[in-house]
Amino acid sequence: MGDIAAEGDAVSKKALKKAQKDAEKAARKAQHKAEREAQNPNKDDRQESATSGEDVSKGKYGSYGMIQSSERLERTLTPISSCTSKLVGQEVWVRGRIHVSRSKGKQCFLILRQACCSIQCVLAVGENVSREMLKFVSNIPKESIIDVCGKVMATPSKIDSCSQQDVELSTLQTWLVSASEARLPLQVDDAARPDVVKNEEDALNIRVNQDTRLDNRILDLRTPANQAIFRLEAGVCHLFRESLSKKGFVEIHTPKIISAASEGGANVFEVSYFKGSAYLAQSPQLYKQMAIAADFGKVYTIGAVFRAEDSNTHRHLTEFVGLDLEMAFEYHYHEVVDTIGHMFIDIFKGLERNYGAEIEAIRRQYPSEPFQFLEPSLVLKYSEGVEMLRSAGIEMEDDEDLSTPNEKLLGRLVKAKYNTDFYILDKFPLAVRPFYTMPDPENTKWSNSYDMFMRGEEIISGAQRIHDPEFLMQRAKQHGIDVSQIKSYIDSFRYGAPPHAGGGIGLERVVMLYLGLDNIRKTSMFPRDPKRLTP
Amino acid sequence: MGDIAAEGDAVSKKALKKAQKDAEKAARKAQHKAEREAQNPNKDDRQESATSGEDVSKGKYGSYGMIQSSERLERTLTPISSCTSKLVGQEVWVRGRIHVSRSKGKQCFLILRQACCSIQCVLAVGENVSREMLKFVSNIPKESIIDVCGKVMATPSKIDSCSQQDVELSTLQTWLVSASEARLPLQVDDAARPDVVKNEEDALNIRVNQDTRLDNRILDLRTPANQAIFRLEAGVCHLFRESLSKKGFVEIHTPKIISAASEGGANVFEVSYFKGSAYLAQSPQLYKQMAIAADFGKVYTIGAVFRAEDSNTHRHLTEFVGLDLEMAFEYHYHEVVDTIGHMFIDIFKGLERNYGAEIEAIRRQYPSEPFQFLEPSLVLKYSEGVEMLRSAGIEMEDDEDLSTPNEKLLGRLVKAKYNTDFYILDKFPLAVRPFYTMPDPENTKWSNSYDMFMRGEEIISGAQRIHDPEFLMQRAKQHGIDVSQIKSYIDSFRYGAPPHAGGGIGLERVVMLYLGLDNIRKTSMFPRDPKRLTP
Repeated sequence: MGDIAAEGDAVSKKALKKAQKDAEKAARKAQHKAEREAQNPNKDDRQESATSGEDVSKGKYGSYGMIQSSERLERTLTPISSCTSKLVGQEVWVRGRIHVSRSKGKQCFLILRQACCSIQCVLAVGENVSREMLKFVSNIPKESIIDVCGKVMATPSKIDSCSQQDVELSTLQTWLVSASEARLPLQVDDAARPDVVKNEEDALNIRVNQDTRLDNRILDLRTPANQAIFRLEAGVCHLFRESLSKKGFVEIHTPKIISAASEGGANVFEVSYFKGSAYLAQSPQLYKQMAIAADFGKVYTIGAVFRAEDSNTHRHLTEFVGLDLEMAFEYHYHEVVDTIGHMFIDIFKGLERNYGAEIEAIRRQYPSEPFQFLEPSLVLKYSEGVEMLRSAGIEMEDDEDLSTPNEKLLGRLVKAKYNTDFYILDKFPLAVRPFYTMPDPENTKWSNSYDMFMRGEEIISGAQRIHDPEFLMQRAKQHGIDVSQIKSYIDSFRYGAPPHAGGGIGLERVVMLYLGLDNIRKTSMFPRDPKRLTP
Repeated sequence: MGDIAAEGDAVSKKALKKAQKDAEKAARKAQHKAEREAQNPNKDDRQESATSGEDVSKGKYGSYGMIQSSERLERTLTPISSCTSKLVGQEVWVRGRIHVSRSKGKQCFLILRQACCSIQCVLAVGENVSREMLKFVSNIPKESIIDVCGKVMATPSKIDSCSQQDVELSTLQTWLVSASEARLPLQVDDAARPDVVKNEEDALNIRVNQDTRLDNRILDLRTPANQAIFRLEAGVCHLFRESLSKKGFVEIHTPKIISAASEGGANVFEVSYFKGSAYLAQSPQLYKQMAIAADFGKVYTIGAVFRAEDSNTHRHLTEFVGLDLEMAFEYHYHEVVDTIGHMFIDIFKGLERNYGAEIEAIRRQYPSEPFQFLEPSLVLKYSEGVEMLRSAGIEMEDDEDLSTPNEKLLGRLVKAKYNTDFYILDKFPLAVRPFYTMPDPENTKWSNSYDMFMRGEEIISGAQRIHDPEFLMQRAKQHGIDVSQIKSYIDSFRYGAPPHAGGGIGLERVVMLYLGLDNIRKTSMFPRDPKRLTP
């Protein structure tokens, strides 16, 4: 059989509209039937679905009704990804969603979708398939979940619109598992379309905007790109943990409800706590440092981090997932910088090695250049970065912080010079870092602190922390901080504390930048920003 | 050399008191010196620490001053756990805390501690060690961190008070890394003592109560038992993820800030959210179910869960770590029950296999019986559980919920009959479960739901969820729930949803019960309850 989606492109707009209308009407009918059956959940109607006495397909199609665990079938469902030419001639059972459904005379073509994979199923009225069965199947609304029993057949030409291009299923049985409403708030195909318009005809195709996507997130998440993005995001967490565990890090969990605002009271969410109030932690830093003072040596934690910033940008969320680490070092904080650098290389290599299919699926919708990195990672001094910017015509002071445009420009300059999308900037000016940052021992204009960048945007900020309580107090006072407010923080270091350094990484930002995506809402499954609290 | 802690037991109380006083005085002196040096962080005073011109140890002891990363030493520090009889005769550098320090004439004995491990270090005035060095070392306060260079020596008799019992270090160099204050709010040795009193003499020993421990958590966490508890807790998370990843689960992250109270509005913390308000999620359930409706198939998430319950019991926290999973199944929710059962067996076996030393360290302070489990897991019907309770004299209705005492009694009965500390209770009465629980297809008195228990306490509650929107609405109405309030929840299932089941596990509870501990505050690094928000 041919490629039905490609065929569809040739059909006239008018005919398409009519076909859609007919399909919708039929779908509503099928749905009402499915709903009636669903409302009667105690009735096992598997055997009663076919109607006429002369139906050759009787008992080979229909609705299961609501699956209520009345029977544990020993049937094996084959993943769509396993339906390859190796199985040609075999009968398989497959469960999937109807991605595309099209009837054409005595034939019906379905594309069945399962996460990133899809396969074509064909029904043709004949020896095994009755008119009644064809009618039933072609009336099932798109996005419904069905079980198909079919024979794997080689296709004469590649089916471009499916992941399984060399085979299709010649359908023998079709059972409805769960019906979708016929009217969808968005079409998965529209949501899966690249933003970039290919040609004039493509310009007529619907694109789904970010808010519509997020309002209907469960449909939006069904696109191949989204299926892949969140699998890759899980991969980043796995690789982060794996890299650090190998080096002796211990996973810890830190409280999100805290008694005092962790970073000075700005941008913090307040919580009613019984008769009093509390705050949501803006960072697990204090707790990571306490774990170090408590002899856990090297720790990491993955968890929610909250920022009450009223920023509606492409890269800010009010709640995100923090990948935080902290490490006691022996003699020099570069031991920690090296550890973090290696960890990122482990992540980048692991993604290339294990998530090739996902990256490809994402790039089909969101094209991007492959992510370049050096091994070992490129480390530049802050002063070198400033020099590069000055050479490019930027005027700035030695100890001025990097503005967002300068940060991005520096990323481009570094890429041009060193061909890397990842680099480390070390020895930031002391003046632009928090009070607990250790000054450089040679020159207090600088500090033992670092940022790391992906495609020119900061993804981790870290430093050697001051582990000496007297010096910490002195630095806090120099910053005009009321030391009585941070007494418990300072006291954490009074009973012997090893020198230590660490940092915090935003998970969504790492995934966004690795993939070259344009908005952090694309890498948060259920994003939170000042204007969005649902779904 | 002998075992200094054992020797200590024989010393008279009076002498001990005097020695302690002297030590404290000396320690204060040493500390002031260390502090003075620490306040002068830019000065590298390594070479200036020894004073007199005729000091044979000159340059072999002193303080590093605050380690500010001025030099990256290439020295290799040997972990204390690696200091075994294999290294006898070799010189090693070791970093650790002074756990015990005792001077005796021209000798000084230290026990150096590193997480769960410890080793004895000996200094004796002679060829390599001057009086000045001995004085310096014996004046360093307990809990300070030091670097020791020493020769590994076999000991004539086992040193019971150290983890390294066959060797000690003959000290050649000692450098102060970070000084502790001399006066400690609790002694790590006291915090490490078993609650059970061994004998009359032991009854005089100080025990540290729960609040003092938590108020001084960074010291309390340094005990071998606590070092082991939180390493084992990290192990539970690792094993949970490993078991589920192997079965194709995808890790997801769900928002903690939500727009409406997830479970009806009781026991929920309110958050100020810019000009409006929001809530803290009591469970990731809705989001897990949405991920299932969005085709992720099998998902898990580890994250903070919040309960505004004003319960001050041994097993309630206001914030805990949830290990949550949700899984689309094919035909029967027992596919999910089996998956969770296997996962627990993977965890129990993994702990036995990889955390033997930690379990031993914990049992030395908190004795418990080894955790027993069957493979495959024991599954009982709720009605069977009720029968067992009735046989033991309990009067209860068929569809009455398990009270906490009955839950515990049933645990004892199951243990006596089946010799397992882990079992699954299936088919709970529908009446005691939430509206979204799928009724049993045979008899609506029961439901497709389950709890699992460790040592007679519930650690996971789960069920097949209703995936049909019409039936879900009908059940909500029967529960008297205003369906307009949960519209978005119901709408999640309108576009085709596979049958699914899942559950949520409390991490701290699993660790507490596995180890037979008596309080959940022992397994939360920084616990939160209605009365505690710090540290």
